[in-house]
Amino acid sequence: MENGGEATKWRFGAANPALEAAGRQSIRSIVSGLFDSLDKSDPRPVAPLGHGDPSAFACFRTAPAAEDAIATAALSGKHNCYSRAAGVEEARSAVAAHLSRELPYDVTAGDVVITAGCNHAIEIMMAVLAAPGANVLLPRPGYPLYESRAALCGLEFRHFDLLPDKAWEVDLDGVEALADENTVAMVIVNPNNPCGCVYSYHHLAKIAETARKLGILVISDEVYDHCAFGSKPFVPMGVFGEIAPVVTMGGISKRWMVPGWRLGWIVATDPCGVLREKKVIQSVIDYRAISVDPVTFVQGALPQIIANTDKAFFENAMDVMRKTAEICYQKLMDIECITCPHKPDGSMFVMVKLDLSSLDGIHDDVDFCSKLAREESVVICPGIGLGMKDWLRITFAVDPSLLEDGLERVKSFCKRHGKTKEVN
Amino acid sequence: MENGGEATKWRFGAANPALEAAGRQSIRSIVSGLFDSLDKSDPRPVAPLGHGDPSAFACFRTAPAAEDAIATAALSGKHNCYSRAAGVEEARSAVAAHLSRELPYDVTAGDVVITAGCNHAIEIMMAVLAAPGANVLLPRPGYPLYESRAALCGLEFRHFDLLPDKAWEVDLDGVEALADENTVAMVIVNPNNPCGCVYSYHHLAKIAETARKLGILVISDEVYDHCAFGSKPFVPMGVFGEIAPVVTMGGISKRWMVPGWRLGWIVATDPCGVLREKKVIQSVIDYRAISVDPVTFVQGALPQIIANTDKAFFENAMDVMRKTAEICYQKLMDIECITCPHKPDGSMFVMVKLDLSSLDGIHDDVDFCSKLAREESVVICPGIGLGMKDWLRITFAVDPSLLEDGLERVKSFCKRHGKTKEVN
Repeated sequence: MENGGEATKWRFGAANPALEAAGRQSIRSIVSGLFDSLDKSDPRPVAPLGHGDPSAFACFRTAPAAEDAIATAALSGKHNCYSRAAGVEEARSAVAAHLSRELPYDVTAGDVVITAGCNHAIEIMMAVLAAPGANVLLPRPGYPLYESRAALCGLEFRHFDLLPDKAWEVDLDGVEALADENTVAMVIVNPNNPCGCVYSYHHLAKIAETARKLGILVISDEVYDHCAFGSKPFVPMGVFGEIAPVVTMGGISKRWMVPGWRLGWIVATDPCGVLREKKVIQSVIDYRAISVDPVTFVQGALPQIIANTDKAFFENAMDVMRKTAEICYQKLMDIECITCPHKPDGSMFVMVKLDLSSLDGIHDDVDFCSKLAREESVVICPGIGLGMKDWLRITFAVDPSLLEDGLERVKSFCKRHGKTKEVN
Repeated sequence: MENGGEATKWRFGAANPALEAAGRQSIRSIVSGLFDSLDKSDPRPVAPLGHGDPSAFACFRTAPAAEDAIATAALSGKHNCYSRAAGVEEARSAVAAHLSRELPYDVTAGDVVITAGCNHAIEIMMAVLAAPGANVLLPRPGYPLYESRAALCGLEFRHFDLLPDKAWEVDLDGVEALADENTVAMVIVNPNNPCGCVYSYHHLAKIAETARKLGILVISDEVYDHCAFGSKPFVPMGVFGEIAPVVTMGGISKRWMVPGWRLGWIVATDPCGVLREKKVIQSVIDYRAISVDPVTFVQGALPQIIANTDKAFFENAMDVMRKTAEICYQKLMDIECITCPHKPDGSMFVMVKLDLSSLDGIHDDVDFCSKLAREESVVICPGIGLGMKDWLRITFAVDPSLLEDGLERVKSFCKRHGKTKEVN
């Protein structure tokens, strides 16, 4: 064997430059970077307030019935095989029945495609809608995987605002102003990541009417379905499926606190059959045929996961979440350089505004988060990752005492870097 | 709610047309279509010779230690969380150690990225290499997911031939003729799907030398690693990583007979560090950050799956495969309108040529497979799905008696449709 002696010129090189941009701006990359920059000599526990994954904390551990269902399915030997592109039939039926309970009509197994988590559902829908020239309307602040996946498949995206002073409702005038004859869809996230709000029945109805007026479909990202612990109940967008066709995306990651199980779904909640007529669901299945499959035995376990999980598990999880959201809000109210426009009542996050003018030597949200990670071992996601420079996204889906401790450290960090220091 | 009375003009429409083409030509769609066309009144069991999934048969059931490892990981509650983009560290280390045993150098955890199956690895590598203007060289016959994924991300592909008369070796002169200054990689599949061959040490060395001469990397799809039951042992392409940089792709789907578990890997088997220098592995991780994750507890179970699976499991599986390959070859030799250029000694497939001139009223391979499915409840993949019109891909990874029965039905089908019928 030669040992590179003759200095071969390797032609492959800087790989696809689109990837670097898309991948590096992902929340995951930003948060990973912050974890990598932690001071390992700090004896305090890391407060992971940057991403929504409560599964590591005992108080948020999933239901035993769900873990048992997985183990039983894995040991059965019946689900080691490939599954069909739309998913395992029993899983599709279980999701259809699960969602139909809260809709004024029934969805059927044929309306459901099982995905490898809700992120996969986002990837699929962006690819499906990427007809030449089409554009899609995305919320700001939002979840940047939409932008990354749209960019990768050449789908143009435009941003409408969520309004902090109106409990982060959708700026529907803005939506109308953005749309043109090539607009095919708008995305809503409810309960909302990153804002921590839950949309009312009334607001969702107005969204549907706007979509109808524009002739576009609504993609409703409901991965945080039922993660609503304030006064407003969660209402599925599919309730308004007769007004405008709705593609509902969801999964078990958040409600069952198992983001690592990677099981989600895309569902046509569209009683008028527009999505079928337009072959949108067939297109989803076409993409699934050349994409990743959800693990077969996780699909096989899904009917039991849904059927056997005790109601008390969900109630208890929401009780803890209500408590941690309250801790989070109270602690943040007590930090001068941070403003919280809306007390969170849903999802696992809150968006807060950073007042840089009251801080010394902190350039922006990224600088704030980098220094905070290094000095206080607290990881928080800078707003820029969600389209809102100089804001922060904080998760409260964390063990209550660690959350309190972490936010206490944020407070002392802000004090230490405040312009009006009393003691140096 | 309105009920569509005013005939809203929905703007979203025929979804991304690229998907339809890419999805419909997938093996999965072709084979699904054949399953859908079966005559349900036929009392005989379906002979599924169209796709390689032996997991449904008792004689190919995975090792109990592997199923136990999954159940243990799922019940531990330690792997319900998200994993990092490169994968769970313990899984990366386990894959590195597993592959290093057969290489003249060590790969490390940093060289390994865990994927949601080998199909995901294909998706990732096509996306990573899709720099503007680049092209990649793919084998014909091949595995059409390469073409589908390359097309979706705008990566040009060109086909070199595998030579049926030379035990399906790569036509290296053809490779040299195809390559130009924009060629970045060539793909080999070894052991080979669909041809059922295993490449010799000598042939792999020549492939590496050709790649070096052209300045391109070798993507070696080794998802059928060690599925070699003839006289030639499986040799990993990474053995030649000093001659040309090799990206090795693999997984547990085939060797452990668990395609539904969706666990694979991309590994830089490249002792000279060209891939690191060119940031190929970083680019793989960038893509993974905005792509689907493998299930965390399956990753968590991987070290135990590798460590605890008894050698006897693999030996037994290969003994059965050797037997079914022999049955398959002997039965096919006995069918007049089918020619088998190479007795299979690896993977789970054999490619055979259809002599249409000896058949009556059969137009092509697709027609053959459609009629065969309807009349005989035998599903076989038409060669067109792999780039070879009027050939067939047949799997022998099937219960031996069902395989014999199925090929007996193929024989009577061919007789019945033969031009020289003795009895009508």
